[in-house]
Amino acid sequence: MSVTLSDIALLIDADIPNDAGSIEIEGLASLESAGPRELSFLSNPRYARFFSTTEAAAVIVSKKTDVPDSLVLLVVDDPYVAFLKVLELFNTRSSHDIARDIDQEARIHEDAVIGDNVSIGPFAVIGRGASIGDGTIIGPCTVIMKNSKVGMGCILYPNVTIMDGCEIGDRVILHAGVVIGSDGFGFAPHGGRLQKIPQIGTVRIGDDVEIQACTCVDRAAFGVTLIESGTKIDNLVQIGHNVRIGRSTVIASQTGISGSTTIGSGVRIGGQAGFAGHITIEDGASVGAQAGVTKDVPGKETVSGYPARRHAEELRLEASLTKVPDLIKKVKNQEQRIADLERYVRQLLDHNSD
Amino acid sequence: MSVTLSDIALLIDADIPNDAGSIEIEGLASLESAGPRELSFLSNPRYARFFSTTEAAAVIVSKKTDVPDSLVLLVVDDPYVAFLKVLELFNTRSSHDIARDIDQEARIHEDAVIGDNVSIGPFAVIGRGASIGDGTIIGPCTVIMKNSKVGMGCILYPNVTIMDGCEIGDRVILHAGVVIGSDGFGFAPHGGRLQKIPQIGTVRIGDDVEIQACTCVDRAAFGVTLIESGTKIDNLVQIGHNVRIGRSTVIASQTGISGSTTIGSGVRIGGQAGFAGHITIEDGASVGAQAGVTKDVPGKETVSGYPARRHAEELRLEASLTKVPDLIKKVKNQEQRIADLERYVRQLLDHNSD
Amino acid sequence: MSVTLSDIALLIDADIPNDAGSIEIEGLASLESAGPRELSFLSNPRYARFFSTTEAAAVIVSKKTDVPDSLVLLVVDDPYVAFLKVLELFNTRSSHDIARDIDQEARIHEDAVIGDNVSIGPFAVIGRGASIGDGTIIGPCTVIMKNSKVGMGCILYPNVTIMDGCEIGDRVILHAGVVIGSDGFGFAPHGGRLQKIPQIGTVRIGDDVEIQACTCVDRAAFGVTLIESGTKIDNLVQIGHNVRIGRSTVIASQTGISGSTTIGSGVRIGGQAGFAGHITIEDGASVGAQAGVTKDVPGKETVSGYPARRHAEELRLEASLTKVPDLIKKVKNQEQRIADLERYVRQLLDHNSD
Repeated sequence: MSVTLSDIALLIDADIPNDAGSIEIEGLASLESAGPRELSFLSNPRYARFFSTTEAAAVIVSKKTDVPDSLVLLVVDDPYVAFLKVLELFNTRSSHDIARDIDQEARIHEDAVIGDNVSIGPFAVIGRGASIGDGTIIGPCTVIMKNSKVGMGCILYPNVTIMDGCEIGDRVILHAGVVIGSDGFGFAPHGGRLQKIPQIGTVRIGDDVEIQACTCVDRAAFGVTLIESGTKIDNLVQIGHNVRIGRSTVIASQTGISGSTTIGSGVRIGGQAGFAGHITIEDGASVGAQAGVTKDVPGKETVSGYPARRHAEELRLEASLTKVPDLIKKVKNQEQRIADLERYVRQLLDHNSD
Repeated sequence: MSVTLSDIALLIDADIPNDAGSIEIEGLASLESAGPRELSFLSNPRYARFFSTTEAAAVIVSKKTDVPDSLVLLVVDDPYVAFLKVLELFNTRSSHDIARDIDQEARIHEDAVIGDNVSIGPFAVIGRGASIGDGTIIGPCTVIMKNSKVGMGCILYPNVTIMDGCEIGDRVILHAGVVIGSDGFGFAPHGGRLQKIPQIGTVRIGDDVEIQACTCVDRAAFGVTLIESGTKIDNLVQIGHNVRIGRSTVIASQTGISGSTTIGSGVRIGGQAGFAGHITIEDGASVGAQAGVTKDVPGKETVSGYPARRHAEELRLEASLTKVPDLIKKVKNQEQRIADLERYVRQLLDHNSD
Repeated sequence: MSVTLSDIALLIDADIPNDAGSIEIEGLASLESAGPRELSFLSNPRYARFFSTTEAAAVIVSKKTDVPDSLVLLVVDDPYVAFLKVLELFNTRSSHDIARDIDQEARIHEDAVIGDNVSIGPFAVIGRGASIGDGTIIGPCTVIMKNSKVGMGCILYPNVTIMDGCEIGDRVILHAGVVIGSDGFGFAPHGGRLQKIPQIGTVRIGDDVEIQACTCVDRAAFGVTLIESGTKIDNLVQIGHNVRIGRSTVIASQTGISGSTTIGSGVRIGGQAGFAGHITIEDGASVGAQAGVTKDVPGKETVSGYPARRHAEELRLEASLTKVPDLIKKVKNQEQRIADLERYVRQLLDHNSD
């Protein structure tokens, strides 16, 4: 695929040098890796150091960027937004690559309800009473169990498992290896053994949610594990039973949320963070990567560290801890000086009392 | 589904008000989320604050709970145990939802041994020489490789993989995405390259073990990776090669146990904990969430933190560390005062020596 | 299977006692677990304490090991290397246990290119334009999407997913549950919602790479997520979009690498480590388990802790932190003594001024 620079300039409303319009662009790349037929962009000034060496055919920059004369520039208000538009232009991937129409070797229960224009790949399984909304695409070897409902315009990649009785909204994307609605982790000690607590609740996921590869969302013990609309969850995340997550919250990879914890809307969570059970993280809070959150977090607060505390406090604490080795030396030195002072003062007092 | 309150009271041996017996209960919910046709319970006094606002039709409480007159109560000795009984009553899920009988499109090797009343879903694969015990249920797209043995009454959810030569006991539950018997992580540096150490051992799992979604149990390099009876393991846990885990141990989500480490019986491990290799955690120990355990833990000891130490010590240490910023200020202040004292004492000594 | 000790001695070039050659060895085990028909070895002196109790038929040891007379010994230069040879001898596992020939119920697109001697298991899916190199083995229920290329002599275990357009080299091993080429985690806030950034890049994996169970490698937003030849990655690891990993690097379980981070060649990374995005870890560096790496790491440096710092510094810091409770007491004691000194010195000064 190839697009002329003048077509790209038109798309993103950028000025270009007169003689550059006919340059053919075949792809996109970062400044440091771009070849002579690729377009790049600068939105973070940190990467301006690559200007002198980039081989990019042209670079999208903002009006205020200071750039060497040698580069062909597309000057715009917001290079990042412009670049996203070009990214879409070069996007040749199609969700129909994972399934087109309903495969003869998909196993669809006769009591399942399949909407219009649904695609289901080979070796996928749709259980009794399940329903699949219009236009939804389901990849090969994906299993949707009894009575689960998947909305319209969803994409379920290969090897996904949705257990029985779960509800998935519209335009939801579930990546390969995702497990929705497996049992919560509940056992009651009973006569020296661990007795399984039946997990009779379910999972409800709103619209426009995206859940990435191998993430697990446990069903509720009773009631519902809830993920509200617009929330995005990265790979290998653990969502415990009866967790509730609000709207447009972002959770990075390998984070774990223990049972019955509530995460508000617009919350941002870094990778490998962990949350104790039965706590509440209010709307708009931010949680640092690898944080260990053991208690409630108020709205809009940023926390980090283990155990997690206000981020500013954590930074102050971390900085202070690096001074401990010197502090120990200082206190040891003071100890000696105080002992010396005590000896001298005793002498002085003795002397005076003579 | 709907059950009268008098039937529930009979089941859990509770007294109820005379006029309440005919109330129809349609489900179970927590105090704060219950609707007017749902039953709730209070076992943790922390949630008593929801008494004033709950819409629950009735609430299971203990004899000593102080409750508003307006609520319909089922008074029992242990509300949690009573609630578990009711949970079982409302449990309409069946393991046969994942498979019933042996599907025509399950691929079962002619040399596999399949017990009585076994159910195997579509697109499941049972390899040569594998055996499946009576009454075991195997979900769609689950793969059991050559010579592996699965006991009686087990449930293997969809998309599970059991590699060759593994032994699984009776009544074991493996949730979706679980991988049993993949290679341990072993490489020997050899001439500048990493040479794979063949992983010729296997995995043995006792009875009544439950392993939840996407957890990985590696086979031994040689010998066996062992999980004894009654142990419960949450989602996304890593069990390295040659690990040995005792009976009725509980391991929360995203924990990682490095190769050749031994975990005793009755051990409790919080989420995201990590264990170095070749160490021993003795019976009855407890390990806090996110702990980094680098050495042996004696029986019944509780450890936490990174590197993990006795929990009481860790708490004392954490509390002391928060005082470091003030300590730094204090020592700086003392430095000044000691310097002042030294100057004065020098003056005094000079004065005396005059 | 059984092999005589004299055959084993020949294989590893070891001397054995005259009367021991006919002993039949049926398997391999560690010193503490070996039975009377098993061979063991000692390479780490730490385990020499098991010499007095081992039931092993014979033990491979180095020349300088001091061993009880009662044991049958195979004396060699490097017991570990010798044991690896014997391990290979006893290895009866075959990658053809997962698939042999091309199964009739594998779904192979008519436009896919399949090499010679390829094996593909039942319910595996090979998409349009995909290519599979000579001698590669693909397990049941593994899905390889459109235009992806898998090299020669690879092993793909069951339930693996490779998304569209990825490139896998020769002799690559992907264990069960692995996901290659799922979308990177990229969203741009736009009008109060999170807009998906199309992930139009791909994944490229070199030769002799091994990726273990349930590990996820995200495709690049644009350009490529790269794993170079000889690198080995353990279970449940997260590799974010546009990450670049060099040659012969070793990454232990549950580690997470955020987007656009570069890991060099010959790097060693412990379990559960986390890496911020857009940083560089240079060749030969080592990163401790559970480390939180927030900035560049120079070549050959060892870092650990959170936030990660030079390992020697981290150890010094950790050791110093354990002294903080005592330090607090000491400073409090000094505070009192300084106050006393100040009082005395004031008295002395007053006295002198009289």
